[in-house]
Amino acid sequence: MPKESDLRMVETPIPALRDGEVLLRALYLSVDPYMRGRMNAAKSYAPCVEIGELMVGGGVARVVESKNPDYEVDDVVNLQMGWQEYAVSNGGGLRKIDPHIAPVSTALGVLGMPGLTAYFGLLEVCGVYAGETVVVSAAAGAVGSVVGQIARIKGCHAVGIAGGPDKTRCILEDCGFDAALDYKATADYPVAIKELCPGGVDVYFDNVGGPVTDAVLANLNVRARIAICGQISHANDTQPSTGPRMWRHILVARAKVQGFLVFDYAARYSSALEQLAQWVRSGQIKYHEDIIEGFENMPRALIGLFRGENIGKRLVKL
Amino acid sequence: MPKESDLRMVETPIPALRDGEVLLRALYLSVDPYMRGRMNAAKSYAPCVEIGELMVGGGVARVVESKNPDYEVDDVVNLQMGWQEYAVSNGGGLRKIDPHIAPVSTALGVLGMPGLTAYFGLLEVCGVYAGETVVVSAAAGAVGSVVGQIARIKGCHAVGIAGGPDKTRCILEDCGFDAALDYKATADYPVAIKELCPGGVDVYFDNVGGPVTDAVLANLNVRARIAICGQISHANDTQPSTGPRMWRHILVARAKVQGFLVFDYAARYSSALEQLAQWVRSGQIKYHEDIIEGFENMPRALIGLFRGENIGKRLVKL
Repeated sequence: MPKESDLRMVETPIPALRDGEVLLRALYLSVDPYMRGRMNAAKSYAPCVEIGELMVGGGVARVVESKNPDYEVDDVVNLQMGWQEYAVSNGGGLRKIDPHIAPVSTALGVLGMPGLTAYFGLLEVCGVYAGETVVVSAAAGAVGSVVGQIARIKGCHAVGIAGGPDKTRCILEDCGFDAALDYKATADYPVAIKELCPGGVDVYFDNVGGPVTDAVLANLNVRARIAICGQISHANDTQPSTGPRMWRHILVARAKVQGFLVFDYAARYSSALEQLAQWVRSGQIKYHEDIIEGFENMPRALIGLFRGENIGKRLVKL
Repeated sequence: MPKESDLRMVETPIPALRDGEVLLRALYLSVDPYMRGRMNAAKSYAPCVEIGELMVGGGVARVVESKNPDYEVDDVVNLQMGWQEYAVSNGGGLRKIDPHIAPVSTALGVLGMPGLTAYFGLLEVCGVYAGETVVVSAAAGAVGSVVGQIARIKGCHAVGIAGGPDKTRCILEDCGFDAALDYKATADYPVAIKELCPGGVDVYFDNVGGPVTDAVLANLNVRARIAICGQISHANDTQPSTGPRMWRHILVARAKVQGFLVFDYAARYSSALEQLAQWVRSGQIKYHEDIIEGFENMPRALIGLFRGENIGKRLVKL
């Protein structure tokens, strides 16, 4: 588990802009589970952040000075700006945000990376058909809550797994899931999954790993599809977690399991964002934000993710 | 582990043929790992054999009497006939075998279900590209030996895992694999896999499960494909086997794991068998048969599979 003292706040001068550059001031910075992986030296899909380097992360920022003809002062953009109040950009990797569609903070949540992860993971990696049972773990999180709602839009039976009554109430009442499992109040996960999914599990969107995932995989239907999106229960493991070997379940169900990263779908972000925005406007997708104020609270905000503190997308507002 | 006394030999009269029926006499009967699953009451992809019922299995048989215009005496056919010397059929599910293509016994091996399993599992479930590293477990078995040889035909680097020097010699010298791992002579599987696959594993065709599979999955390349075909190391487990949870490896590699059954590809058996027969005739696929004589030895022949006795396809000749 990371500690606040693992991160250090450093002040440096804001560089003078060169031609083509813009100066950005952060409005919101994102904290996401993937960041924990970047703090490890272990092999992963992206290089880790070296000690002394700027911590990576997405942000929503306002242009405060511009020497780039494509950007004016007060434009709002989404970018990978790292954990800093100000950033200089040459315009590469910036995405302009239209504040009329939804609050700009959503560019870090339902209309940003987490929403896209839910969209492509459920619709492309798994593929869903009306009438199927879709189970998602970390269901009250930024990704999971959108997964269940898209599943509902597609006519599926959406079952969410989350920890604690506030989260299960949120996904049932606010997000319209069909069923919810509070794993913290459950002793026998496999039996509980069986009760909530009497017809078996067709699709499983996994954000957590561990015993919850073991239990879902023991209840698969033939031709089930499983997207491995995250393994937050193992984020702070110091040695490999052990559990029952699940391959026989995968074989018997002729199931497909696929790990994925949303970046693999970058070429299609804009059409997916258009669809997500339409669902948000129509009220078919509700979103929650868990906003913490103050740049100095970034470490605490991140650490809290691994304690399951947040309902919906956790952001830091500057 | 099954015991010979778990099976009982019973004599019953041969029924008189009705119109449309043929009487078949077994020439070869197959023993296959999947049969162990049918002897369990556990949920699987096919109903289990109830106590007192005829044990299921494939055979190659000669027509000894025919009241069906499509079959003549001395025709040789492949069918699911169960463990019996004689069977009566109405012609449904029979496949005529041309003895000029290859010995008729191959209809239970390289030109039958095991060969088809290798073909569809490698080429359809995984998909392979020239230059990729393909690892197969139980590599000296009826399925695994064909997997590695097809991988070679497709220009891949074929690595086989098998138990004991006779098996590794067979897959290297007879079947032309590029590399072999004798897991019985290896203490550290992950290190051994890394040494044999210095560029990582692109495709893994799994017949065994257990620690061998754990080790391969720790060495996956990005976009690796894994076919789960069998889990013979767990065939006789009395409780769930435990091991390291592997989903993080699947996630980081953005890998795809799929369980499959060859029956899902039944509509395309004939074109696949044509291709396999061509490769056998051209010498690009070698096959081994491990033939045990005598119907009474069926139980012993099956049990031996789980002791790893066989190199190549184990058959019983009647």
